Amino acid sequence: MARLGRSTWAFGERQVGVVATSTVAGTLEAQGPLSDAFDLRLDDDRAGQDTWERAEQAMFRRAAEIACEKAATHPSDLDLVIGADLNAQLTSFYMGLRPLARPMLGVYSACASICEALAVAGLAVATGFADVVLVGTSSHTSTAERQFRYPTEYGVQRPPTAQRTVTGAGTAILARGRGKWQITHATIGEIADFGVRSPWEMGAAMAPAACDTLRQHLADTGRSLGDYDLVVTGDLGRVGLDILRHLLVEQGVASAPVAEERVQDCGAMIYDENQPEVFSGGSGAACSTLVTFGHLFREMERGHIHRLLVCATGALLSQVSAQQGDTIPSISHAIAFERGD
Amino acid sequence: MARLGRSTWAFGERQVGVVATSTVAGTLEAQGPLSDAFDLRLDDDRAGQDTWERAEQAMFRRAAEIACEKAATHPSDLDLVIGADLNAQLTSFYMGLRPLARPMLGVYSACASICEALAVAGLAVATGFADVVLVGTSSHTSTAERQFRYPTEYGVQRPPTAQRTVTGAGTAILARGRGKWQITHATIGEIADFGVRSPWEMGAAMAPAACDTLRQHLADTGRSLGDYDLVVTGDLGRVGLDILRHLLVEQGVASAPVAEERVQDCGAMIYDENQPEVFSGGSGAACSTLVTFGHLFREMERGHIHRLLVCATGALLSQVSAQQGDTIPSISHAIAFERGD
Repeated sequence: MARLGRSTWAFGERQVGVVATSTVAGTLEAQGPLSDAFDLRLDDDRAGQDTWERAEQAMFRRAAEIACEKAATHPSDLDLVIGADLNAQLTSFYMGLRPLARPMLGVYSACASICEALAVAGLAVATGFADVVLVGTSSHTSTAERQFRYPTEYGVQRPPTAQRTVTGAGTAILARGRGKWQITHATIGEIADFGVRSPWEMGAAMAPAACDTLRQHLADTGRSLGDYDLVVTGDLGRVGLDILRHLLVEQGVASAPVAEERVQDCGAMIYDENQPEVFSGGSGAACSTLVTFGHLFREMERGHIHRLLVCATGALLSQVSAQQGDTIPSISHAIAFERGD
Repeated sequence: MARLGRSTWAFGERQVGVVATSTVAGTLEAQGPLSDAFDLRLDDDRAGQDTWERAEQAMFRRAAEIACEKAATHPSDLDLVIGADLNAQLTSFYMGLRPLARPMLGVYSACASICEALAVAGLAVATGFADVVLVGTSSHTSTAERQFRYPTEYGVQRPPTAQRTVTGAGTAILARGRGKWQITHATIGEIADFGVRSPWEMGAAMAPAACDTLRQHLADTGRSLGDYDLVVTGDLGRVGLDILRHLLVEQGVASAPVAEERVQDCGAMIYDENQPEVFSGGSGAACSTLVTFGHLFREMERGHIHRLLVCATGALLSQVSAQQGDTIPSISHAIAFERGD
């Protein structure tokens, strides 16, 4: 249990376990290729609520309930709840999970938030400051579009580099020394900014941040790409993933075939490219959460993946910063998972 | 070094030191009663920038530079930067402190954020996962009003319970085992919601959260109010402070004279009530930061305060939640400081 190199926390073997995860998927996500990996598949993105924001809160709350059920954990046993969403001032997290009535820490690094939450939770669990922690994120296409770009109702035409914000929520329950999966390392990212200004080009904005964090993680841990069965980024989409692979080859991190085989992206996995209006793929704080806690953890359980690195990626823009012509600073945090048994 | 009770982290004696602090104050704050406690007093809330948002980012950046100068620390020596602001998607923190080029963790609990940042930083420092951490928050009346209520330019008339968002930024550098001040405990808050819906009534919304966290802190640590020379809340303002004192007496935490003498509020301290448009007092993520890192730490240095508890208070509303008629969930996190020498 120690800090490694510039920015990696090593939690040690079997210290930080993941006992249970939960995933609630929106309608388009439920119709996608990973459909059967999700615990709950909605057929209405309103989730029976009267506003999109309350729908997102309800999904987050339902995800937390499912995780508690699967872990046979009563909310009162949670020492801490850590999470995020994309709404201004984290209202989905705070309002959605308010009924848990437990100590809460809101974090924010846009769509990298799930890895930030897992890092802080891992630190608390590894050091014995918390025994059981619930972490999670949510996003919703209809709340996020009006936060960051234009309300969906405007019908603004999007370029092919655009991504669709994933609708859904996912949570995980971490516990000290037990669980089917474990978190071994967290690498805290730094800002990368290559001057991209368009909120429709988030893959291009975030790819350099993912590249930096992956390189830093490998340098800090002394590992190579080959030590992981799979490295996934959060939500670069098909366009951003292509840029990342080029960067990795250019910087000597991987050969082209290795980058092609070992490096994937949750945003490129969650939809079939023939689904309507998914453009370059998925994005949003729930994107890497749904794919990791749903699909990839199942792949680990099935023995198809032993060691997994998730580099969630966040574009740190706001509607105001975009309107004021600012560039999009981006960040990526990485979490290394292994089977826990 | 251990967890105490339900939600308090005890960092041990002289583990988490505060080496230096910095405060940058806006014009109205610089004209207030605590003026000479601030490192930099602005005479222009635009800080030479072309937008209010960039002005806030510039203040945050300047505050970080001052703290590094005072601590004789180069930004490259910072293991971690943790902070927050009130703008949607934390743009002041991420864009303002981007030039530091260090690993960053954004946190958010509205105006309780400085205590959340100190808690997470304290955890990392106490456990040796970081040696030197910069924490900070900023807020700006002209960016916050249009985030949460109406743009200042509308000239909306405010009720006397309204508070003025503090313009400024403050940071602190934490280091393991050294510093003039130390952090001994952090208590992580839970949501309190008494059904207040008006964004002009934040003191009333947040007072129950401050009361809960203070009670929990005392229960977890086995301390009484008398063990602190001063307990300050973040930004309840005069109206909210009065409500809090009533709650403390009602719940048997303190007698009326003790509550009157020992419990104060940063929002009630930062302005003179005769200053223009301050109404019930200050609020904002920089409110408790400026008062604590400027005024109160100086009082500790002068020997007037030995033990200080800061219960920063956050109102977890957004413009959307207010417009949709939601109540205002509130939270308070507490940090216990002592002299370090």
